[in-house]
Amino acid sequence: MHSFQDLLVQFEAFFGRHSFPAHPATLYEPCSYFLRMGGKRVRPVLCLMSHELFAPLTENAWNTATAIELFHNFTLMHDDLMDQAPLRRGLQTVHEKYSPSAAILSGDVMNTFAYEHLNRIETGYIHTVIELFNATAIRICEGQQLDMDFERRPSVSMEEYMEMITLKTSVLLAASLKLGAILGGATVGCSEVLYDFGRTLGIAFQLKDDYLDAFGESALTGKQVGGDILANKKTYQSAKAYEKADEKGRALFAELLSRNDESKVADTLAFYAALGVQDDLKRDIEHHTEQAYTLLEKVPVISKRKEHLYAVADMLLKREY
Amino acid sequence: MHSFQDLLVQFEAFFGRHSFPAHPATLYEPCSYFLRMGGKRVRPVLCLMSHELFAPLTENAWNTATAIELFHNFTLMHDDLMDQAPLRRGLQTVHEKYSPSAAILSGDVMNTFAYEHLNRIETGYIHTVIELFNATAIRICEGQQLDMDFERRPSVSMEEYMEMITLKTSVLLAASLKLGAILGGATVGCSEVLYDFGRTLGIAFQLKDDYLDAFGESALTGKQVGGDILANKKTYQSAKAYEKADEKGRALFAELLSRNDESKVADTLAFYAALGVQDDLKRDIEHHTEQAYTLLEKVPVISKRKEHLYAVADMLLKREY
Repeated sequence: MHSFQDLLVQFEAFFGRHSFPAHPATLYEPCSYFLRMGGKRVRPVLCLMSHELFAPLTENAWNTATAIELFHNFTLMHDDLMDQAPLRRGLQTVHEKYSPSAAILSGDVMNTFAYEHLNRIETGYIHTVIELFNATAIRICEGQQLDMDFERRPSVSMEEYMEMITLKTSVLLAASLKLGAILGGATVGCSEVLYDFGRTLGIAFQLKDDYLDAFGESALTGKQVGGDILANKKTYQSAKAYEKADEKGRALFAELLSRNDESKVADTLAFYAALGVQDDLKRDIEHHTEQAYTLLEKVPVISKRKEHLYAVADMLLKREY
Repeated sequence: MHSFQDLLVQFEAFFGRHSFPAHPATLYEPCSYFLRMGGKRVRPVLCLMSHELFAPLTENAWNTATAIELFHNFTLMHDDLMDQAPLRRGLQTVHEKYSPSAAILSGDVMNTFAYEHLNRIETGYIHTVIELFNATAIRICEGQQLDMDFERRPSVSMEEYMEMITLKTSVLLAASLKLGAILGGATVGCSEVLYDFGRTLGIAFQLKDDYLDAFGESALTGKQVGGDILANKKTYQSAKAYEKADEKGRALFAELLSRNDESKVADTLAFYAALGVQDDLKRDIEHHTEQAYTLLEKVPVISKRKEHLYAVADMLLKREY
């Protein structure tokens, strides 16, 4: 049993052993560049932690964790291009530094290397693992598509928003935990509780992200307050505000969305405040957080073994940045 | 044992049973649109034909053929975007009809469905099949990358050109044949001869394509003569001409490449003619064609069973369009 930090160090060492071929450099250098950017490695480490609930780590677990992280980076590379994001973790995105074609093709080849690691899994597990991996990959594409579709719409319902973040963010956390459990020899029922734990944790995590964007301390988050508001991104707040507003409120909201001036963030926050959206969001984060802890309690493993997973949930949900 | 035409009809029926989910339509409609465009289905049918050399068709074979065709279409969708191609088979490409993001994301999800079909293969074969599939996918990315890199260079050597077309075009034909053979129960040695046959056939096919673009009858090909010349695309001819030309000739070639006038095609063809490039190409096509037939002869199966594969090779290599 290891803590998140311990496994993170071990994972970085294993993951660092993965290298791409040298030729053609124009294909593989963007892959290496992107991986060198780093990342929290939450998903692969959750996979390893979940595995350790049931059994010591195996090559199956390391390869699956590696596949998950390669896959995740492939999706980020494509998402950055689709979202026209200039920066990631303060560094130039691949399409900015190299070219849009590099982001497409280097992403594609990175995804193939993910499957290359999956193919190293023992025969007895391979069908189950690839089945869940594919189903998750499909859902993530669907989530990214919905996110893009929502950008072109004036409003989305809370139900639609929750579906989108579940697909785009939660299912990969959920699948990482479930894959670790399966490979650790957990029963089907048990691995499904871990899936639900991950899904709920993922939703709470994304809602916390929404919260910090609008109501966080810029000094702590290191980001501009209201970045999502300025970009007209759909968030919990925008879905909730639209849901609660009357006709007059919705007209005001439409006007706020069309604006591009200095007071846009402040006025939108005031609009949210008038509708009590911050409290709703706080309550919903608490609700999902409690639900996540309840699901983790349900995992039929002695509490002592789950300590590190509780700590990760704390780390992800109680952060102020 | 079935002919290419028979298996094509059967494959279209099986492939037509594959359908994408309904929601989100913005993700899946571009996938369905692209598959509805049709195609020659050469790769999946070669996989089936190769399987039939050794054993009656199984679900393994149908699923692998389907995976190959889904994968091939995914790469075309991404290639069209990277190459900024407005049309494919006379119809709008996905990025033109929908959006660049649609070409990226719908391509990504189509690739996942390819792996979904691979995951239906029996356990005893799955590692071998996915290993070859991944290795091929990686090579195809490398080939597309080289093709793009070459566009920005004034010249490429014959060796570089041959490497590029091998990676971009030949290895998928080769892998399709080898996968069919493996799943049909062929020995390793035997499946490798079929791989080499496919690789050689693929090179001959691509060279024939190059030939027809420059020296074909527009009335038969339905394409403008010299399309590759106008687009400054690297071809066998351009690599060979650069190889054979002296310093003065290379300067003239550079001048021809920089031109964008009406006489560009005629003048480039005259430049090729002066260097005897057409005869070199003809000889090289014949050489690879003969080599392909020799490899097919070597497959340790009675000639009668190979009749249909000989017919496909004839169809692909003796075409004038």
